[in-house]
Amino acid sequence: MTIITLTTDFGTEDWFVGTMKGVILSIAPSAHLVDITHGIPHHDIRAGAFALGTAARYFPKGTIHVAVVDPGVGSDRAPIVVHAGNQFFVGPDNGLLSWAVQQFGADDIFRIDNPSVMLADRSSTFHGRDIFAPAAAHLATGLPLSRLGSRKADMLALPWPKTILCTDGTLKGEIIYIDRFGNGITNIPNSAAGTNSGFIELPDATGIPVCDFYQSVPEGQPLAVRGSTGYLEIAINSGRACEQFQLEVGNRVLLRP
Amino acid sequence: MTIITLTTDFGTEDWFVGTMKGVILSIAPSAHLVDITHGIPHHDIRAGAFALGTAARYFPKGTIHVAVVDPGVGSDRAPIVVHAGNQFFVGPDNGLLSWAVQQFGADDIFRIDNPSVMLADRSSTFHGRDIFAPAAAHLATGLPLSRLGSRKADMLALPWPKTILCTDGTLKGEIIYIDRFGNGITNIPNSAAGTNSGFIELPDATGIPVCDFYQSVPEGQPLAVRGSTGYLEIAINSGRACEQFQLEVGNRVLLRP
Amino acid sequence: MTIITLTTDFGTEDWFVGTMKGVILSIAPSAHLVDITHGIPHHDIRAGAFALGTAARYFPKGTIHVAVVDPGVGSDRAPIVVHAGNQFFVGPDNGLLSWAVQQFGADDIFRIDNPSVMLADRSSTFHGRDIFAPAAAHLATGLPLSRLGSRKADMLALPWPKTILCTDGTLKGEIIYIDRFGNGITNIPNSAAGTNSGFIELPDATGIPVCDFYQSVPEGQPLAVRGSTGYLEIAINSGRACEQFQLEVGNRVLLRP
Repeated sequence: MTIITLTTDFGTEDWFVGTMKGVILSIAPSAHLVDITHGIPHHDIRAGAFALGTAARYFPKGTIHVAVVDPGVGSDRAPIVVHAGNQFFVGPDNGLLSWAVQQFGADDIFRIDNPSVMLADRSSTFHGRDIFAPAAAHLATGLPLSRLGSRKADMLALPWPKTILCTDGTLKGEIIYIDRFGNGITNIPNSAAGTNSGFIELPDATGIPVCDFYQSVPEGQPLAVRGSTGYLEIAINSGRACEQFQLEVGNRVLLRP
Repeated sequence: MTIITLTTDFGTEDWFVGTMKGVILSIAPSAHLVDITHGIPHHDIRAGAFALGTAARYFPKGTIHVAVVDPGVGSDRAPIVVHAGNQFFVGPDNGLLSWAVQQFGADDIFRIDNPSVMLADRSSTFHGRDIFAPAAAHLATGLPLSRLGSRKADMLALPWPKTILCTDGTLKGEIIYIDRFGNGITNIPNSAAGTNSGFIELPDATGIPVCDFYQSVPEGQPLAVRGSTGYLEIAINSGRACEQFQLEVGNRVLLRP
Repeated sequence: MTIITLTTDFGTEDWFVGTMKGVILSIAPSAHLVDITHGIPHHDIRAGAFALGTAARYFPKGTIHVAVVDPGVGSDRAPIVVHAGNQFFVGPDNGLLSWAVQQFGADDIFRIDNPSVMLADRSSTFHGRDIFAPAAAHLATGLPLSRLGSRKADMLALPWPKTILCTDGTLKGEIIYIDRFGNGITNIPNSAAGTNSGFIELPDATGIPVCDFYQSVPEGQPLAVRGSTGYLEIAINSGRACEQFQLEVGNRVLLRP
């Protein structure tokens, strides 16, 4: 019973996701379907890449991840499948799969161009249903990767925003994701804060302490919590940091030693 | 492992859908549950009918679809199950199932009135849990359709909004659904636009080109895309047509040759 | 195929729930995952307790319920598993599990403190993924309850808001939950209204009739419907009572004979 996960920006208000599941189960009736999320902000490839990368490492070997955040659907961007870390990643070649793949290293990349693994009647606007879902389902039934299409030498990779270490020991990073609790996830690894407290500085706030959990500070107070993704998160105990500090993806964050 | 899909206006904030699943799995432990959507606007039978009709044809034979958008719950509208296209449709007889059934043709209609396939302790406000879920689950265990209740000669059908062809070649249609991307799905079949470009006219906009995918026009520009449901959709590349054109279901749309 | 349900305040916009599912399926590949809801208002333990308690009784014996509404995550509140009514309840010991457990009576309570049933690399902010999900999954594979940790004599219980009977026959109750339809669910049992009509009084409205279903009154009119949870609900036929009457949890409600 192969696991097929779904990560999209389709939302759950319409029939889009349900239809993809119908297509998958028509081909691979015993697939075990798991939603990672369908709430990626519309066309936000970076947010999708981060969500998929964070979730994928908690799934068992053999899992097939289908991800669709695809502003270029119908244009000439390639549909691809990547074998990495003993898992499979199916989606558009627009960077969406890259952060998940990079943590494992890509063993093989194929362009999905074998029409027999797609729906016969294909739209130009819903490749999630017409190409990615059926390709993943065929993979789940045991079809070898090479039967989905032709080998590809590379895939588009999103640049991972790097942190910068200054001579005074300050680490410069940035906000890379804002979660539904209003926490701002940074690109500064928890390990960079060591076991000392350290302090985070935002453009509009200084002296935010690095802590282990939300209730380490009084209610309403800010903290930089060692986050469950492996990165420091700007948070407020029982509050929403994104509104209080007007956090946006890309905002500069400093870790003071 | 029979597939049972769920389409409702119950939302996912409360326990309603989870409870229906508990009821189903108590009766049919190996049922394979698939959510089509629980985000149908409250009491919007037409939107539910369109969502179910669009999704159903992508599911395999034998699938049991449970749909509940049921403003008349507890009144004398009948609970029904319909056999159509080798699938089963379970829900209230208020038109909700009709567009899904019409594309296949109804082979058999039963009123669910056998109390032994319902929960013993029934509310008057949650037939999704007390009647539709257990009836579908019994069907999934192999109970014949005829054991759910008594045969019924007909079911309520929503009128499908027809397009009108004018002598100058113009096709008059309307908006029938607005999806979560803000696209206005029309009742004008993709095929009506042929392979030519053609132009769509709204009350407040003219000359909207018919295209194959969103990026066929520059960002921010409107288009009528050949949609994945089989119907033209009024859209804006990387924008929301429903706000820009104040689209509402029922708005007149013209296809100019 | 053991059922594992999930009830959280994590929302579905991020990867949190999907990640918990990956952890569960890595340990218990044949677990049958069911979402009750992930839309519990952030940190609202009472709302979570009510949702879980209402849904749990519709699941079969052997079901494992994982619930995470956990403002104290990372602090010293205990992670627990409770055996009650032939089901299992896994979550933080903060009252969240108590209304579900109380309807059955607790047969056994364990503190989850065996590190071998947790993820090796544990965060202080996401025990749903690192402790509750793996503990539930190990239980699903057949690990005895006693292997999850050490027996515990008691668990924290939320007080259930009691109704008060006055000498004139009036029953004083309160609003305990507002559902997504805007209905205000009270703590007054349907049975208290008997089979007579009776009337509900709110601070700002009197003479609201007790009825069996929404369409018992004209559109736009208020009613107190005998609700599917077993309690009277303040509702408006085709409207939203919570806005019209500015209902909030804790508001006083009177049932006049």
